Amino acid sequence: MDTRNFLRFLFLFFSGALVLLYAWVHLPSDLPSSAELLLLKNPFKPPRLRNSHVSDVPHHPLDPLTVREINQVRTILSCHALFKFSVSYALHSIELEEPEKPLVLQWKKGDPLLPRKATVVARVRGVSHVLTVDLTAREVTVHETGSHSGYPTMTIEDMTSATWAPFASAEFNRTIIQRGVDLTDLACLPLSTGWYGKAEASRRLAKVQCYTMKDTANFYMRPIEGLTVLVDLDTKQVVEISDKGRNIPIAKAANTDYRFSAMEFNKVKALVNPISLEQPKGPSFTVEDNHLVKWANWEFHLKPDARAGVIISRAQFRDPDTGELRDVMYKGFTSELFVPYMDPTEAWYFKTYMDAGEYGFGLQSMPLDPLNDCPRNAYYMDGVFAAADGKPYVRSNMVCMFERYAGDVGWRHSESPITGIKITEVRPKVTLVVRMAASVANYDYIVDWEFQTDGLIKIKVGLSGILMVKGTPYENMNQVPAQEYLYGTLLSENIIGVIHDHYVTFYLDMDVDGSDNTFVKVNIQSQKTSQGESPRRSYLKAKRNVAKTEKDAQVKLKLYDPSEFHVINPSKTTRVGNPVGYKVVPSGTAASLLDLEDSSQKRGAFTNNQIWVTPYNKSEQWAGGLFVYQSQGEDTLATWSERDRPIENKDIVVWYTLGFHHIPCQEDFPIMPTVSSSFDLKPVNFFESNPILRVPPNFEKDLPVCVSSASA
Amino acid sequence: MDTRNFLRFLFLFFSGALVLLYAWVHLPSDLPSSAELLLLKNPFKPPRLRNSHVSDVPHHPLDPLTVREINQVRTILSCHALFKFSVSYALHSIELEEPEKPLVLQWKKGDPLLPRKATVVARVRGVSHVLTVDLTAREVTVHETGSHSGYPTMTIEDMTSATWAPFASAEFNRTIIQRGVDLTDLACLPLSTGWYGKAEASRRLAKVQCYTMKDTANFYMRPIEGLTVLVDLDTKQVVEISDKGRNIPIAKAANTDYRFSAMEFNKVKALVNPISLEQPKGPSFTVEDNHLVKWANWEFHLKPDARAGVIISRAQFRDPDTGELRDVMYKGFTSELFVPYMDPTEAWYFKTYMDAGEYGFGLQSMPLDPLNDCPRNAYYMDGVFAAADGKPYVRSNMVCMFERYAGDVGWRHSESPITGIKITEVRPKVTLVVRMAASVANYDYIVDWEFQTDGLIKIKVGLSGILMVKGTPYENMNQVPAQEYLYGTLLSENIIGVIHDHYVTFYLDMDVDGSDNTFVKVNIQSQKTSQGESPRRSYLKAKRNVAKTEKDAQVKLKLYDPSEFHVINPSKTTRVGNPVGYKVVPSGTAASLLDLEDSSQKRGAFTNNQIWVTPYNKSEQWAGGLFVYQSQGEDTLATWSERDRPIENKDIVVWYTLGFHHIPCQEDFPIMPTVSSSFDLKPVNFFESNPILRVPPNFEKDLPVCVSSASA
Repeated sequence: MDTRNFLRFLFLFFSGALVLLYAWVHLPSDLPSSAELLLLKNPFKPPRLRNSHVSDVPHHPLDPLTVREINQVRTILSCHALFKFSVSYALHSIELEEPEKPLVLQWKKGDPLLPRKATVVARVRGVSHVLTVDLTAREVTVHETGSHSGYPTMTIEDMTSATWAPFASAEFNRTIIQRGVDLTDLACLPLSTGWYGKAEASRRLAKVQCYTMKDTANFYMRPIEGLTVLVDLDTKQVVEISDKGRNIPIAKAANTDYRFSAMEFNKVKALVNPISLEQPKGPSFTVEDNHLVKWANWEFHLKPDARAGVIISRAQFRDPDTGELRDVMYKGFTSELFVPYMDPTEAWYFKTYMDAGEYGFGLQSMPLDPLNDCPRNAYYMDGVFAAADGKPYVRSNMVCMFERYAGDVGWRHSESPITGIKITEVRPKVTLVVRMAASVANYDYIVDWEFQTDGLIKIKVGLSGILMVKGTPYENMNQVPAQEYLYGTLLSENIIGVIHDHYVTFYLDMDVDGSDNTFVKVNIQSQKTSQGESPRRSYLKAKRNVAKTEKDAQVKLKLYDPSEFHVINPSKTTRVGNPVGYKVVPSGTAASLLDLEDSSQKRGAFTNNQIWVTPYNKSEQWAGGLFVYQSQGEDTLATWSERDRPIENKDIVVWYTLGFHHIPCQEDFPIMPTVSSSFDLKPVNFFESNPILRVPPNFEKDLPVCVSSASA
Repeated sequence: MDTRNFLRFLFLFFSGALVLLYAWVHLPSDLPSSAELLLLKNPFKPPRLRNSHVSDVPHHPLDPLTVREINQVRTILSCHALFKFSVSYALHSIELEEPEKPLVLQWKKGDPLLPRKATVVARVRGVSHVLTVDLTAREVTVHETGSHSGYPTMTIEDMTSATWAPFASAEFNRTIIQRGVDLTDLACLPLSTGWYGKAEASRRLAKVQCYTMKDTANFYMRPIEGLTVLVDLDTKQVVEISDKGRNIPIAKAANTDYRFSAMEFNKVKALVNPISLEQPKGPSFTVEDNHLVKWANWEFHLKPDARAGVIISRAQFRDPDTGELRDVMYKGFTSELFVPYMDPTEAWYFKTYMDAGEYGFGLQSMPLDPLNDCPRNAYYMDGVFAAADGKPYVRSNMVCMFERYAGDVGWRHSESPITGIKITEVRPKVTLVVRMAASVANYDYIVDWEFQTDGLIKIKVGLSGILMVKGTPYENMNQVPAQEYLYGTLLSENIIGVIHDHYVTFYLDMDVDGSDNTFVKVNIQSQKTSQGESPRRSYLKAKRNVAKTEKDAQVKLKLYDPSEFHVINPSKTTRVGNPVGYKVVPSGTAASLLDLEDSSQKRGAFTNNQIWVTPYNKSEQWAGGLFVYQSQGEDTLATWSERDRPIENKDIVVWYTLGFHHIPCQEDFPIMPTVSSSFDLKPVNFFESNPILRVPPNFEKDLPVCVSSASA
């Protein structure tokens, strides 16, 4: 047997052995067996659901496709020439094609539903197609995908098959075994490759890296460092194996498991007595027709989305003075993420994830844990998505919604001893939170849309989950030579938490009292007084600058050159003549500092500014481009904005990017406490006066009577 | 009768009439009568308290002076030469003189209490004195007050008498009547003058401005614009009257009242069903000996303070691994505020308040409203302060403390469809909030110290209350000539909300595992890769810069040159060799943009940087200086820091300034919804790993059973 045949034999042997190995796993308690694993990797497992959604019908033009409609799409497509004669194809997304905005704006409850259409992204014989499926006419239109680089979002099937592809490689299996790892203990991740030049050109690729889950559910803390398997996503073939880190030991499993069931009983410690948000009269919101939320003065349409996670549409506020329902935001969602890791070495340089367009922020949102992800009073909404073969499936409890009282104050005033008048007037702050949590492999993103009764919308991103760590031979910082830089923090023996950034870019189609709005930067400038004008030498002056074109609205935030960012309706003023508006209020954030010519930053160029404003364009919704996977960055928000189109008194879209620099610390091991940041959309002269002036305070008589469940 | 005699007559007439007028008030319903007003203006009203505190005894070296101790101080002082022979004197503060830090650090419960001393600030015959009163030895030491400018914090009596002083002026009374305002409807405020040169030199002054409270409790919205009465605080005499705004109408009362009792019944609207934070098994914290708080892994000493509002001392965290109680912060409090208004005209230029040192942030903290300022499960703490004659009085319910569950997530992870493993582990986030609310005349500041189980301390400032507004002849923006700048926003007819800033500077004596600490700026820099090193052109690198001296630690935050700000213990590392530390994590903030040579900015020079670090010095606690009132800014944090003392591996104090630019908007009228900002003190390699790894999730069986009170 020559070397080549020997390798073939090895390959066959291991391929065969693999099947047997699955029956032999020794996973820690409570981990699924590998047989179960295989099953779980199939997203078509029978849904264990309170609602199978088979009888759902759409009620609103923006309602997502139903189970029935997705099935219809699949049926219609199966007769279409593109698919009829294809042995294999994959449907990367089947989503509602939202009707034209003016039609939606005109539509009222009771009107006949607008014609239902689906947008389908399909790959057939190595070519990506975008199709429109008209569900009424049963017609299919195939669109040009354009000359842009990039591929559609991976399907779950892509991801699953990529993680299994390496096992077909004898070389892979050999190096795993040589590292002392049992093949059955492997957990592998399909990592998007980004785009760095020729290597990523003209084929759809993933890089697979693996971990051992022996003795821990937290396999992320046990990386098989330096081993990267390049897999062709279309052919499922291993293209190349990079095997560099054989001298790096695999970190220990001890103290990495985070599951409650895996804790030693005597080490578990409840720090606080039970505490709960209680509403014996029930929540104050209603959800009409599955998606239309009505709460306090707010009304909005809420739906899960495979790519964006959650989409808020047609957010309107009932004016407390006029009773009129006023437009605030036509559509808001997480458009894209950008997560560059800060390690230029071979197994790490490419890690510059765009989680929405590469993995699907909604596809990665798992069912929320009642009582822990959301309080007891939460309402849950399921996602209905399509698998690669077009079959619908249900992601249960994907979004939750709850009323929050955090003990905070909506407004207050006491008269002080100075005036001596006896007044204390305080109103508690109660808000409505819409939440999803996407688990993009190791990391967890918690996205909250929090609606306040005073018209403010707070958009908050929380980061939790598990760090993506790097194996290292070092067990202590005192072993690290002075000149050596680790690209991160030694978190535990043999583990480095690599520095990285997170950017989350939000699409905010503001419609302040109508679609035609203007973006105004209200710049706060120091103004010197003239000689003799005042005992003061300086004061701050607010100067309004209308953004006429897109470039005027490219904003880098500056602490020492601050502005407020108003979206106003130039055709409407308040009683005393101020333009009605909403402002974007940044809070803590981070800016990308990567070289603008870096190919990752070109792809993530939508993070070059914190704020951008573009004219509404139905095709410009995904800040990194529709086909972000391996894209070269020629179709991003930055490109669109460079056209410098007029944006004054137009239907405009505001883009805001929330950023985090993350230098890991030991507290992030083995699972990280949530870190959050947020920004606000806040009414600014939108109302004539404080819209919650006339809400009553809490009275003891209205609050519930509670006993501990033990005594109940 | 010549003019002079006529004026004397008028003066006597009005002075006399004043007494009668108080019996004749026509205040809107629910406002106290002016007789009550007079009574209320006396802080010695009999306490309506659950606890008179007369039997309180100190247990801890940091416990505030008790009622009995304050009485002792008064008795001791009354025998001292300085006071014995003085007809009149005022005690501006009587506070515990905290024992030397090493003694406090050594002290343990059960040890005899350290000798109790009081620091007294007194004004006797126009001279300020600082005295130490030894309560055991009954000895008084008089300290040099130094050559610094400035006066002590106003007493409540100063403020009250200043507001009444103008009534003795015939000119004042005449102009009020000429403006059509009844004298009995006046509400006047004593405004600190700041320091702008000779006019403020060598006498203690206040500027009094007035409002009419006719038909509204919200007199702040009815300014008598342009009328400023300069009053000598020591003699109570009117020094000067500036009367400029006679042509400016007084804004209407309509829609300004914010009291629930003043609402028209049919306009009140409850937006939400009752919602409550419930803990049937009670709170998880204990308060030992009145001031020592123990909650989850935290222990700290909490006390109200007349100047700072709330002081947190000896914050320690019990290490979940070792069980050891570890030092985090020796002392933290609101050191000073700076609130410059941005209008250089005569009646406004001087408004550059320093609320802690001028008015007393604690003195202005009124009793919190149970159920509305804090949730139902809150615990309340009273303040015990001294009046100007040295008599103790009790400010009840000045501080609240409660456990918060806001529906948020402490940490979470779900395994995604990529790995297909069935895991969802989530831990709810429960925190402990310590809250006070200071009402410095119109504005309300809500200060929260929020302790998290993961070791993080969030310090949050909320702004609510009522704007300080300016009268204007304009009723609509269309009346304002294009070239005219209003210095703010027209909020309603005849009312401008003047632009202003708020800066709140915190003193944070961090003791990370001991007193000797080092401040490290971990700078995040873009690093270019060298040719051929990587497909990446750049990555971000963390570079640690130790601050050797104070100037190294003067920090202006920069989005595009970011750093983390670590306070580490250079003598202690984690198991894997990282220095243990805490970091200061800024969030949204604002920086002062005033001219550094502006006399207001010189006084507020502590806002010239967002972060400063100084070596511990018992005398450097008040960022604007001990005697801030009319100070010239020669004794601020900025001055101290300019000495550039060594700070490496020393007992250091971190100063953080939280800022807000406030361009008012109509939503702020007539009372503003709370605006908040915060910063965090966050463990960074302080723990070996996530300190809340082993807390259990919520289980339904542990949560309470609640019914609405109506059905109970």
